[in-house]
Amino acid sequence: MKKRINIAVLGLGRLGYSHTKNLLTEVHGAYLYMVVDPLPGRAKEVAGEFGIEFHSTNIEDALTHPGVDAVVIVTPTSTHAEIIKKAAYYQKHIFVEKPLTLNLEESEKVSVAVKKAGIICQVGFMRRFDPGYVDAKRRIDNGEIGRPLYFKAFTRDPGSPPPEFIKSSGGIFVDCSIHDYDIARYLFNTEITSVAAHGNILKYDFMKEFNDLDHGLTYVEFANGAIGDMEVSRNSPYGYDIRAEVIGTEGALFVGDLREQQVTILNQDGSNFKVFPDFQTRFRVAYIEELKHFIHCIQTGEKPIVDDKDATQDLRVALAATHAYQTGKKVIVEEFAPEKTHL
Amino acid sequence: MKKRINIAVLGLGRLGYSHTKNLLTEVHGAYLYMVVDPLPGRAKEVAGEFGIEFHSTNIEDALTHPGVDAVVIVTPTSTHAEIIKKAAYYQKHIFVEKPLTLNLEESEKVSVAVKKAGIICQVGFMRRFDPGYVDAKRRIDNGEIGRPLYFKAFTRDPGSPPPEFIKSSGGIFVDCSIHDYDIARYLFNTEITSVAAHGNILKYDFMKEFNDLDHGLTYVEFANGAIGDMEVSRNSPYGYDIRAEVIGTEGALFVGDLREQQVTILNQDGSNFKVFPDFQTRFRVAYIEELKHFIHCIQTGEKPIVDDKDATQDLRVALAATHAYQTGKKVIVEEFAPEKTHL
Amino acid sequence: MKKRINIAVLGLGRLGYSHTKNLLTEVHGAYLYMVVDPLPGRAKEVAGEFGIEFHSTNIEDALTHPGVDAVVIVTPTSTHAEIIKKAAYYQKHIFVEKPLTLNLEESEKVSVAVKKAGIICQVGFMRRFDPGYVDAKRRIDNGEIGRPLYFKAFTRDPGSPPPEFIKSSGGIFVDCSIHDYDIARYLFNTEITSVAAHGNILKYDFMKEFNDLDHGLTYVEFANGAIGDMEVSRNSPYGYDIRAEVIGTEGALFVGDLREQQVTILNQDGSNFKVFPDFQTRFRVAYIEELKHFIHCIQTGEKPIVDDKDATQDLRVALAATHAYQTGKKVIVEEFAPEKTHL
Amino acid sequence: MKKRINIAVLGLGRLGYSHTKNLLTEVHGAYLYMVVDPLPGRAKEVAGEFGIEFHSTNIEDALTHPGVDAVVIVTPTSTHAEIIKKAAYYQKHIFVEKPLTLNLEESEKVSVAVKKAGIICQVGFMRRFDPGYVDAKRRIDNGEIGRPLYFKAFTRDPGSPPPEFIKSSGGIFVDCSIHDYDIARYLFNTEITSVAAHGNILKYDFMKEFNDLDHGLTYVEFANGAIGDMEVSRNSPYGYDIRAEVIGTEGALFVGDLREQQVTILNQDGSNFKVFPDFQTRFRVAYIEELKHFIHCIQTGEKPIVDDKDATQDLRVALAATHAYQTGKKVIVEEFAPEKTHL
Repeated sequence: MKKRINIAVLGLGRLGYSHTKNLLTEVHGAYLYMVVDPLPGRAKEVAGEFGIEFHSTNIEDALTHPGVDAVVIVTPTSTHAEIIKKAAYYQKHIFVEKPLTLNLEESEKVSVAVKKAGIICQVGFMRRFDPGYVDAKRRIDNGEIGRPLYFKAFTRDPGSPPPEFIKSSGGIFVDCSIHDYDIARYLFNTEITSVAAHGNILKYDFMKEFNDLDHGLTYVEFANGAIGDMEVSRNSPYGYDIRAEVIGTEGALFVGDLREQQVTILNQDGSNFKVFPDFQTRFRVAYIEELKHFIHCIQTGEKPIVDDKDATQDLRVALAATHAYQTGKKVIVEEFAPEKTHL
Repeated sequence: MKKRINIAVLGLGRLGYSHTKNLLTEVHGAYLYMVVDPLPGRAKEVAGEFGIEFHSTNIEDALTHPGVDAVVIVTPTSTHAEIIKKAAYYQKHIFVEKPLTLNLEESEKVSVAVKKAGIICQVGFMRRFDPGYVDAKRRIDNGEIGRPLYFKAFTRDPGSPPPEFIKSSGGIFVDCSIHDYDIARYLFNTEITSVAAHGNILKYDFMKEFNDLDHGLTYVEFANGAIGDMEVSRNSPYGYDIRAEVIGTEGALFVGDLREQQVTILNQDGSNFKVFPDFQTRFRVAYIEELKHFIHCIQTGEKPIVDDKDATQDLRVALAATHAYQTGKKVIVEEFAPEKTHL
Repeated sequence: MKKRINIAVLGLGRLGYSHTKNLLTEVHGAYLYMVVDPLPGRAKEVAGEFGIEFHSTNIEDALTHPGVDAVVIVTPTSTHAEIIKKAAYYQKHIFVEKPLTLNLEESEKVSVAVKKAGIICQVGFMRRFDPGYVDAKRRIDNGEIGRPLYFKAFTRDPGSPPPEFIKSSGGIFVDCSIHDYDIARYLFNTEITSVAAHGNILKYDFMKEFNDLDHGLTYVEFANGAIGDMEVSRNSPYGYDIRAEVIGTEGALFVGDLREQQVTILNQDGSNFKVFPDFQTRFRVAYIEELKHFIHCIQTGEKPIVDDKDATQDLRVALAATHAYQTGKKVIVEEFAPEKTHL
Repeated sequence: MKKRINIAVLGLGRLGYSHTKNLLTEVHGAYLYMVVDPLPGRAKEVAGEFGIEFHSTNIEDALTHPGVDAVVIVTPTSTHAEIIKKAAYYQKHIFVEKPLTLNLEESEKVSVAVKKAGIICQVGFMRRFDPGYVDAKRRIDNGEIGRPLYFKAFTRDPGSPPPEFIKSSGGIFVDCSIHDYDIARYLFNTEITSVAAHGNILKYDFMKEFNDLDHGLTYVEFANGAIGDMEVSRNSPYGYDIRAEVIGTEGALFVGDLREQQVTILNQDGSNFKVFPDFQTRFRVAYIEELKHFIHCIQTGEKPIVDDKDATQDLRVALAATHAYQTGKKVIVEEFAPEKTHL
C-alpha cells in the first residue's frame, strides 16, 4: 500500500474547513494530522469535531513538526509567500490556494525557494480537475477538434463578496478571470501573449472606491496564433455559471453545466432545474480531485499538473489585463511592467 | 399557377374556427368560400369577421353549392358518416376531423361511398404532419435506425374534458390513444396485430359513470414482429406532452419536444421554460401542414398520406384496445368483434 | 378582406429567389406581380416557373409600373441607394435587404427621400422576426429579467464567402456583427454609445488583402449604462450558430437554438442532432415573418419595427467598430467620423 | 474518529473486483482486510495488487475470522442464502449483491437468520444511491409533486449477457425489472399490489430455450392507488439507458441522464455526446455510495435503507410479473403462489 501522507491544514476559514473535510472523508492516502488557525479556539474546535491528533494557533508548529509531510495553505493571500518559503525550508510539500501571491516579484521568489527545496508546490486552480475540463483537455490533446482557434470563457458569480474582500482581492481580473487565463493556457498548451480588457460597474457602486469593476471582458491572443475572450461577472442573477466554448479547425467543444439539481421538475410553471448557487457546489468534485492529485504526486514524485510556475504566469496575465483595462490599450504580456499597475 | 380550391368549413367550434383562420392566412391555394354552423348567427358572425362570401346554418347548402370544391368537416363525430356520404354524393373532396366515426361498420360504409365517388377523403390525424414525426418517418424509411423493434409513445393531456364530452368520446383509447396507434402504423409501415390494455381512474371519478379511465397503457404487437407500448393520460400536471421513442436494431430516435417557450429563462428559481399547454399550441404547425397537404392532393390528384382506410383501421385497433382493457385479455385485432365492446 | 399588395421583386439571386417563393406560398395578402433581374432571361425563367404576370430586365419598369404597390430590393448593396430614391419618388413601398448602404451619408440621404415620400421602408434585419428574439423582446419589455445589464451575442458562420464577396462586403463588423448591433439596440431599447473591437485572421489568409478578418469581438456600451460583447466568426466548423445571452438584474434569458434536426438520433456514436448549416435554414421562419410584417404595415399604415433609420444607426455602429478595430481604441459612436475608416 | 470496519470481499469477479477497488480508494472507514475467491490464485493476485493483508480460496476462512467485521458477498446468486446464513451465525454484517436469492422461501429463511443474529444485511440495489433517484426520493417525500399518481421506468441494456448467464438469471423480470420494482416501492413508499406483464424476443433467439425474453413491459398497481409501467430491454443500440418519469397531482419529475461524456462535441456531424455504455459507468457513484452507507450503518447501528426484507418483496413482485407474463393474466402479488412459476 502507498505511504500515508500526513497533512497539516493551515487556515480554517470556509475553504480551509472544506479542504479539511475532504481530506478526512474523500482523499485516500491523506491522513489529517494537524489543523492550525490563529483564531483562538478555532483549531481546537475543528480538531475536536473530527478527532484530529494535533492542533495549534501557530503555523510555525506545523511547519517544524517532524510528523507533518505536507501543508495545505488556506490562509489570507498576503501571508502565502512567507509561509511557502518557510514550508520549503522545512521540506514540507505544499498545496496552496490561488492566487499564489498578488505580486509578481514575490511569486518569482517563491518559485526559487520551491525549486531549491525540491518539494512539490501545487496551486489550487481546481478548474483543471473539474470533470468537464478534464474531458475537454483530453479531447483537445487527442486532436478531436483539430487545431484550436478560439477560446471563449464565461465566469459568472451570483454576487459580489463584501467590500473588505474586494479591497485586497487584486481586482476582478486577478481574483476571477485568472481561472480562465489558467485553464486557457492549460487547454491550449500555449501562452497568452497579449491582452485587452474592458468592463464597468453595473451593480456594486462601492467598487469604485477600490478601482475595481463587477463585469469585465478580456480579449486575448495566444502564442500559437489562436485568440479568445473571457467574460467575468459578479452580477449573475441565476447562480454560478462557469462554461467554455472551444472552437477548433475540425470541431468545437462546449464545457460546463448549469444544472445543480439531479432531476427535472415539471409543473404548471414549466420545466425547471436549479442552477449551481456557488463555486463550492459547482466544483465539489474538482476540490476533491485536486487534493487526490496532490497526495498522488507526493506518493509518486510526479510533477503536479498546476504549480507555482503556472500560478506566476497566470498572475502576470491577470495583472496585464488589469493594466489593459485601466489604460484602454492592448498589453503585450512579456513587455508588461507590473509596477505600473494600480491594484 | 395552381387551381384555387374553394372550401366550405362545416362546424365553427373551437377547432373549426382554428381551421378557418389557418385556411385564410396560412394555406396558399385554398379559398375560404363558405362557413356553416347550425347555431343561429355563428356562421354569419365568422363570415363577417373574415369577409367570407357565403355562410349558412344548413350543411346541405354547402354540399349542394356548385362553387364549393371541398369541405372541411369539424362537426360532432356522430354526424360525420352522414355528412361524408352526402359530400361524396355531391363530389366534394373531404377533410374530416378524427375520429372518422365511432363505429366500424359505419366507417366501412363511409369508405365504400368515398371510393365510389372517387374523391379525396383525408382524416385529421395531424400528428403525421408534425415536423418531428415527419423527420422520424423519413429517417426510419431511410434505414437510419435499422429495422424497427420497439415503439414507445407518450400522450399526456393536462386535464380531462368535461363529462358531456367524455360521455360520447368513445373512451380514452378511442379518443386519445388512437393518435398513437395511427402514428405507430405509419412510422412502422405495418399493422398492429394484437393489443393488451390496462389503466385506471386516478383523478376524475366521474369517468366511472361512463366506463372510462383517465390513465391507460396499451401494449401492442406489430405484423413485422416489432412490439410497443403507448401510455395515455388526462392527468399531466405540467402541460401537454406528446413524445415517442423508436428503437431499431442500429439506433433509436426520440421525437417530441416539451418546450413552448422560445427562450430559456434563468433566475433564482433556476433554469426554466414553459411547456406546451394544449394540443392547439403543440400541433400548431401540423394543423396548418395537414390542410396544405389536403389542398395539394386536390390540386394534383395525389392520394393523401392519411385517409378513411387508415382511420378505419385505427378505430379497429382502438376498439380492440378498449375491449382488451375491459376483459383483461390480449385481443387479436383481426379476430376482434367490435359489437362485444361497451363504449 | 384586406387589400392585396402587388409586389415586384428586384434581383433574383439566391436570396431574391427565396423571397419570391416565400411571397408566393407563405405570405397572405402579397401578390407577386413582377420579377426583375438584369441578367438576360433570368426574370423570364422565374416568372415562367411560378406563373408570374410581369417580368423585366429593367428595374425602372417595376418602379414606374402603376400596378406595383411595393418593391422588394435584393440587388447588390451598391445599387440600393439609387433604387430606393427612385422607388420613393414613384411612391412605391420598399423592403430592402441589409445593409441599406455602406456609406453613412448615402444612408442619411435615403432617409430624407423616404421621409419626404411618406412611404414605408423596411430593412431586412430578419433577426427581429425570429421567434426566439421575438420572445426575448417581449419578455425583456415585460420586465421578466429586471433591468438589462449585459448583452452577449454569438454569430458564427460555417465558412467565409468567396473573396469577391468579401471585397465589397464592408468587412466582418459591417457585414455580420451589424445584425447583433441591430438586435441589441432593439432588445435593450437604447443606443450603443461606444465600441471597442478586436479580432484576427484565423483561417482565411486572403482576407489580409481586403483589410478584413474572420474572427472578431466587439465590446459595447449602451446609453442606459448596460454593456455587452459580440463575437463574430467565419470559422465555425459545426454549422451556423446564432445565440444571445441577456443578463438583467432579476434574471437572464438565453436565445437561440443549434438544432436543425427535429428528432434526436441515438446510436453507438452517442446522442446526436444536426446543427443548422446556414442562415437560410436557421432563419427560415424569420424570412417569412418579415415579409408578412411588411405587407401588414402597408395594409394598415403601421410603422415597420425596423426601418431605414435603424439601418443607418446600425451602420454607424458597424463603421465605428471597424474603426475601433483598426485603431485599437475605443470609439464614441456619436463622435465618430466615418470618412476616416478604411473599408 | 469512527471505528474502522474490517471487510472481507467474497467473490472477485468483475463486480467483486470493482467493490474491492471502491472499498480501497473511495470508502472512508472501510478497511479491506481480506479477499476470497474459490478460483485458485485469484484472491492472492488481488491481495497482492492492492497490498491486502489476508486472502483465501475458502469463504469459510472469512466468515470465521475474528478480525472480520463484515462481508461483501459477490458470489453467484445460488450461493447467497447459504453464505448469508453462515455469516449471520458468525455475527458478520452483510452486504450482498442483488438478487438476494431466486427463491422466495429461501429469501424468507435468510431474513429469519438475519433477524435472529441482529446484524445488518444490506442488499445491492444501488439505484437507491444514485444521485438522481436520491434527489427524486427527497423531493417526492417533500411533496414537491403532490400525491404520486404514475411511475414510469425505462431499463434498457445495450445487449444480452451470454446464454450461460441467462440460464440461471431468473429471467428478465427477475434479473432486470426487479430494480424498477424496488425503486418504485421506495419512491412511492408503498407496495406493488398487482402486476401484468408482456414482452417478446426481438433479437436474441437463444432465449427461447430458457423461456426468457429480451424486451418486456410490466404494468403495476400500487397499494396507494397509483399505477405505473416499466419497460425492460436487452436491445438498446445506443447504450445503457435508465430513466424514470414520476407524475404526481401537482407536478412531475424526470430522473436519469444518458450523458456519459462531460463535454458536448460539435462538428460537421452535428452536436454529440456519448451515452453510458454499461451499468458500471452509469452507476459508478451509486456503487460507491451504497458501500459508504453500509459502513455508516455498521458504525452507527442505523438500519440500511434497503435490506433483505425489501429484496424479498422485490423478488415476490418479479416472480409474480414472470407468472403474469407466462399466463397473460394480471397477478395479485399477495395471492401469488411462486411454485407455479417456471423460471
